[in-house]
Amino acid sequence: MANWFSRKPRRIEVPRLRSRNEDVATTKVDLHEFTPEIMTFLGRAAYVQLTQFENLSRAISSAPSTAAKTAIGRAAELSLSKHRMLVDEITRAGGTPADVMEPSTADVDRFERATHGADWFETLVTCYLTAGFLDDFFARLAIGLPAEPARHIATIYAGESGEAVLAGLLEEAIEANPRLASRLAMWGRRLVGDTMLVARASLQYSENHKSDEARIEPVFTELIAAHTRRMDALGLTA
Amino acid sequence: MANWFSRKPRRIEVPRLRSRNEDVATTKVDLHEFTPEIMTFLGRAAYVQLTQFENLSRAISSAPSTAAKTAIGRAAELSLSKHRMLVDEITRAGGTPADVMEPSTADVDRFERATHGADWFETLVTCYLTAGFLDDFFARLAIGLPAEPARHIATIYAGESGEAVLAGLLEEAIEANPRLASRLAMWGRRLVGDTMLVARASLQYSENHKSDEARIEPVFTELIAAHTRRMDALGLTA
Repeated sequence: MANWFSRKPRRIEVPRLRSRNEDVATTKVDLHEFTPEIMTFLGRAAYVQLTQFENLSRAISSAPSTAAKTAIGRAAELSLSKHRMLVDEITRAGGTPADVMEPSTADVDRFERATHGADWFETLVTCYLTAGFLDDFFARLAIGLPAEPARHIATIYAGESGEAVLAGLLEEAIEANPRLASRLAMWGRRLVGDTMLVARASLQYSENHKSDEARIEPVFTELIAAHTRRMDALGLTA
Repeated sequence: MANWFSRKPRRIEVPRLRSRNEDVATTKVDLHEFTPEIMTFLGRAAYVQLTQFENLSRAISSAPSTAAKTAIGRAAELSLSKHRMLVDEITRAGGTPADVMEPSTADVDRFERATHGADWFETLVTCYLTAGFLDDFFARLAIGLPAEPARHIATIYAGESGEAVLAGLLEEAIEANPRLASRLAMWGRRLVGDTMLVARASLQYSENHKSDEARIEPVFTELIAAHTRRMDALGLTA
């Protein structure tokens, strides 16, 4: 059984802040050219995190066992703590959290409905895959914020996550019922589209769409590769 | 508007551990004579706390505004953190959390269904009133545990709670719609019965039921008085 309560920090691939002498060839691609102004960034990141928590809380309510409930509880606590820290950043930057989140609610709620899942297993896959993708995305987008908030946000996303808990539960479920694998693999592939949409809608584009696309593409290639690795970890080969 | 994010510790009325020279007349009544063995206590306390979190997460999903969602999020985070600390105590005492919680699931789930509430306002009243009552109850029952776990549990229940957050949201809702008050007052009174039932079922009785009742009664009188004060604080006079 996976050690669900391990306190090990998450091995998230957060790109470091760029320094002028850095060897660009070895730097992970980030999205600093597309970072919106700070309130827009924070409102969106905080509301997406709240949605991730709501998915987790649905997974708790519909969990088939007390063991699963309490294990997902840890993931939900970590997600709520991230949400609160992002909300604290909004306050620190002089904003009113609900007002700053409001512009994101319509399309993030739409994303939430689209990725709901038909049952507990699909909901859990949603929690596991979209949180991994979006936390990674917002960490890369935060690089373009002013130095101090950028550092705070990097710390928030580098913190412990519930990923291992969710992967452990899904592994168990698939082991107990191997026929789940193909359905969950299909669901995992379907999630990529909606997750990319909500991520892309968080970018601040320039006037030159064509050159934007050329620079955005490699980042999404990496994000999708990480998504595929998360699926591979469960044996859900894409 | 209430300061929902205040970090002030909760003013919970936790009775101190009894010392032999203590002036009994001034001591708050506790339930140390009725404390079950530690695993039974912890399993029940942890599962009740998980149920409180589930109520809070329903209140988040059905909240009418982003401001309410994020405010309740703080209460949910605190509740999950209490649940996790109780689960950690189970592990520390050598138990497997899910197994230790299992005997409590049937009647606590029944309690949860009975106190569900018909809409967001009633759910929120449930969160506010039953968490106040049950945290207070388990804090008093923990006094009868061996000294070290008793101290840990006292610290857990003395920690920050979401009570002020929930009271603030309810005050606002009643102010905006005064006709809510009589319905919520009725709901608050109805909750006492089910909450007392689930609390009483957590006690370890002796053979002498009559003498048990005489010693339990004053504690429940205090718990109900605190419940009434919580209702009074919202203007929901019982």
